[in-house]
Amino acid sequence: MDPNTASALHALLSGPVASLGTLREGAPFVSMVPVVPAPDSSGFLVHVSRLAQHTRDMLADARISLMLMAPPETGQDPLALPRVTVQGRAEEVPVETHRHDEAAEVYLARFPQAEMTLALGDFSFFLLRPTAGRLVLGFGRALSLDASQIQAALPKAP
Amino acid sequence: MDPNTASALHALLSGPVASLGTLREGAPFVSMVPVVPAPDSSGFLVHVSRLAQHTRDMLADARISLMLMAPPETGQDPLALPRVTVQGRAEEVPVETHRHDEAAEVYLARFPQAEMTLALGDFSFFLLRPTAGRLVLGFGRALSLDASQIQAALPKAP
Repeated sequence: MDPNTASALHALLSGPVASLGTLREGAPFVSMVPVVPAPDSSGFLVHVSRLAQHTRDMLADARISLMLMAPPETGQDPLALPRVTVQGRAEEVPVETHRHDEAAEVYLARFPQAEMTLALGDFSFFLLRPTAGRLVLGFGRALSLDASQIQAALPKAP
Repeated sequence: MDPNTASALHALLSGPVASLGTLREGAPFVSMVPVVPAPDSSGFLVHVSRLAQHTRDMLADARISLMLMAPPETGQDPLALPRVTVQGRAEEVPVETHRHDEAAEVYLARFPQAEMTLALGDFSFFLLRPTAGRLVLGFGRALSLDASQIQAALPKAP
């Protein structure tokens, strides 16, 4: 991957928000989730409520898709917008583990407002672990990615 | 629906871009698509290439999901971002029909840059017809929508 492409991918993977695709009764369902890179760069962390449909979806079927895009600018050709789709699997991070504490730390550093939801019993962290991806940097400029390329481009925790 | 909610929904449905969820070998896949409301407010129009995976996905299984969100602002709590998920079905608009000509007209009015892709033989319009939806206007402020509520809130063609 050339340095410009790597830099564009890195910027996209920084979030702060992504479109999450889950399976609901076999059909696709897209919702919005705040995301942060996992501290070990194994994937993305999302903090979701068991009351939300996308959480039930992930518990029923771990297959997910995540799409991150550059913010649209007025008058810009939307097809020129850089974006990346990550295919992967969701796994819940067990509470009262070191991994959970680390997840909470990086998540709060990025989203200080999450202090409220972190205190709620129905919220938990899921790690979205990439299996493959597709980077699009403009019309006709697309590149398939494997899991290791995505993990290598994930921003490192501060 | 109260006027503030209707107004927020109307703004979200105006696009210009959406996250499209399709099914790929039974798994969700999320991609970015420019969208315009269909002239008869029956749903959303997307203009996609048969070479693109999401197009093959829709031809293999018509079930789709579309998510539109307000642009994130720096420092804002992402969970406060207004967004709407539309569940629906995709149907190709046959070329050389009145519906196709109308679609091309409203699409070009919104995306003048599409003149190039409109001339390409592998591109065609799909109507994404809503079956249900979920509007989220902030933390804990969510509302389920039926197809007629979504269609009524779709911006009218000029």
